[in-house]
Amino acid sequence: MFRKAIHRMAPYVPGEQPRPGERLVKLNTNENPYPPSPRVLKAVARAVLGQALRRYPAPQADDFIAAAAHRYGFAPRMIMAGNGSDELLAMLFRATLGPGDRAAWPAPTYSLYETLAAVQEARVITPPWGPDFELPLEALVRARARLTIVCNPNSPSGTLTPRRTLARLARMLDGRLLAIDEAYVDFAEDNALSLVKRFPNVIVLRSLSKSYSLAGMRLGLCFAHSGIIEQLGKVKDSYNLSRVAIAAGAAALDDDAWMRRNVERVKGARGAATRRLIEMEFTVPQSSANFVLARMPGRDLGPVAAGLRKRGVLVRFFRAWPDALRISIGTPAEMAALFKALAPLAAALTAAPRNGRVRS
Amino acid sequence: MFRKAIHRMAPYVPGEQPRPGERLVKLNTNENPYPPSPRVLKAVARAVLGQALRRYPAPQADDFIAAAAHRYGFAPRMIMAGNGSDELLAMLFRATLGPGDRAAWPAPTYSLYETLAAVQEARVITPPWGPDFELPLEALVRARARLTIVCNPNSPSGTLTPRRTLARLARMLDGRLLAIDEAYVDFAEDNALSLVKRFPNVIVLRSLSKSYSLAGMRLGLCFAHSGIIEQLGKVKDSYNLSRVAIAAGAAALDDDAWMRRNVERVKGARGAATRRLIEMEFTVPQSSANFVLARMPGRDLGPVAAGLRKRGVLVRFFRAWPDALRISIGTPAEMAALFKALAPLAAALTAAPRNGRVRS
Repeated sequence: MFRKAIHRMAPYVPGEQPRPGERLVKLNTNENPYPPSPRVLKAVARAVLGQALRRYPAPQADDFIAAAAHRYGFAPRMIMAGNGSDELLAMLFRATLGPGDRAAWPAPTYSLYETLAAVQEARVITPPWGPDFELPLEALVRARARLTIVCNPNSPSGTLTPRRTLARLARMLDGRLLAIDEAYVDFAEDNALSLVKRFPNVIVLRSLSKSYSLAGMRLGLCFAHSGIIEQLGKVKDSYNLSRVAIAAGAAALDDDAWMRRNVERVKGARGAATRRLIEMEFTVPQSSANFVLARMPGRDLGPVAAGLRKRGVLVRFFRAWPDALRISIGTPAEMAALFKALAPLAAALTAAPRNGRVRS
Repeated sequence: MFRKAIHRMAPYVPGEQPRPGERLVKLNTNENPYPPSPRVLKAVARAVLGQALRRYPAPQADDFIAAAAHRYGFAPRMIMAGNGSDELLAMLFRATLGPGDRAAWPAPTYSLYETLAAVQEARVITPPWGPDFELPLEALVRARARLTIVCNPNSPSGTLTPRRTLARLARMLDGRLLAIDEAYVDFAEDNALSLVKRFPNVIVLRSLSKSYSLAGMRLGLCFAHSGIIEQLGKVKDSYNLSRVAIAAGAAALDDDAWMRRNVERVKGARGAATRRLIEMEFTVPQSSANFVLARMPGRDLGPVAAGLRKRGVLVRFFRAWPDALRISIGTPAEMAALFKALAPLAAALTAAPRNGRVRS
């Protein structure tokens, strides 16, 4: 019944969601520990007033796009809205890749890309990040992929590739598409949005899930030249954003100060968490995101993740990368709970001999 | 940059959406003229309370699925939720069809199917409906398509294929997938949901846009054997429904009486509209949906649609089928406005000689 590629592939598995009523310190899916702007809640209330919901939404999410155009200084025809940036990524894969076509990104990164490539039966080329997570620029260029993606800041490393390096990559890709997935960029000191205006092959993706505290609403944005937006529109669901989502997205972008304040609090806690983890003998790459990667090269951190779970703290453990934990930055109270649970586990781990089962 | 098939194809164009503030009698996109249940608005208000939106939604839309399982008597593993039934249709095409694979449906029908097939580079076989919109059963079986779709009630004809005919088709397709798109079925006297339990190759799609007055919220449901649901899950966005949509969908299904009452009012107005159109010398197939198809075989009704637009009434005109207008059923006041505007246009048309430019 289904395509062979679908039967063969494994589904993408999102991080654990606690069941209703389950009280956990949830540091596993990079949600913002602070709530969205009160303006968003007011906009939602207005969006459902009277008979509004019986009508289809604007197919191009006009009000959200207008707010994004104003906020970022782009023409509306250079912006597309998505039901989360995951939907925009899926649209990008669908529009560009057929069976056997090449896609490339540095590994490890957001594992959804692998899933989306499998659906398209694309061939994936994944050069590893260099030491200290330098972009494998030459290898990405040599891949000659129809679609190259750089998650920046990268997940799960949290590291940032400088804009000038991305500009070099965009130029060297010689017209082939470069998508820069900036889901976490509001937590960084720079971003690459300006490259969209300089290079006709650059696409920048944004999410309102993290910095704007709207993971529950599903809102993403894509910036690119209008010709790209037009082609992507052909694989877009006609009405991909609800009336509620459109209103919420517009209101969120209009309250940039609220987002900035929360981002600053997260960045403060990120610095403190990094120092604390290093004291515990973890290796922590400098993070430009709302999470940190805590590594103990050569050690299997699976038991640590399980131990934290038992103590009511969820962090993200990737089977493919067992000497690392990705820890979202929570409130100061959540981080205190994390470190209280982590301290004895980390101490036991550093006291034990290396088991050698895991390569660093 | 993009796949050749994408460059070549035309996008799906949804019906005209009035601009904010534009006062039109909107009978062109089959929206419900009555508002959704007040319980939906309360559920939306609850869903955004406090910090809820900062958290990701349940990936499988648990509360909405639980409400659907209860309402329709299916196990949750046999149900999938979509961001509108359009998203579920797109998932179905993506999961089943590769380049050159065959898809089949009777024509004319919901034109989105053509768009979705073009994205997959599928080969489309579209036997025409028989006289009085009988299902071209033999031709559909002969097509031996990987995916066969019957929109039932069909759009734009509004006609209903009996359940026993669909059961015959399901059996004769011999394991190949049959998707029954029941977006409009709450306005009909029967439905084919029970076939999902009888046939492992049958998929039934539902929408909350029409009968539940929730076009603005984007909610659809798919019923099928759990093996099908599992494969479809591989091409689903991880979090395809927002927290707000999940809550709204669950609340809507829990207030079935509200939906039923609105459906009865629409059916009453549909009968009156059908009689009135026949008096005006239109041919009107018996509708089981929330719209009627008004035909004048051999006449180009484009000028009538344009004339109605000028008088502030939107109906749907399909360039590919120019001797027909699809008219959504509105409130009694909206229908009165329609007929006031239509009467002189129809009279002028029937008085004029046939122009012969259009084949019936």
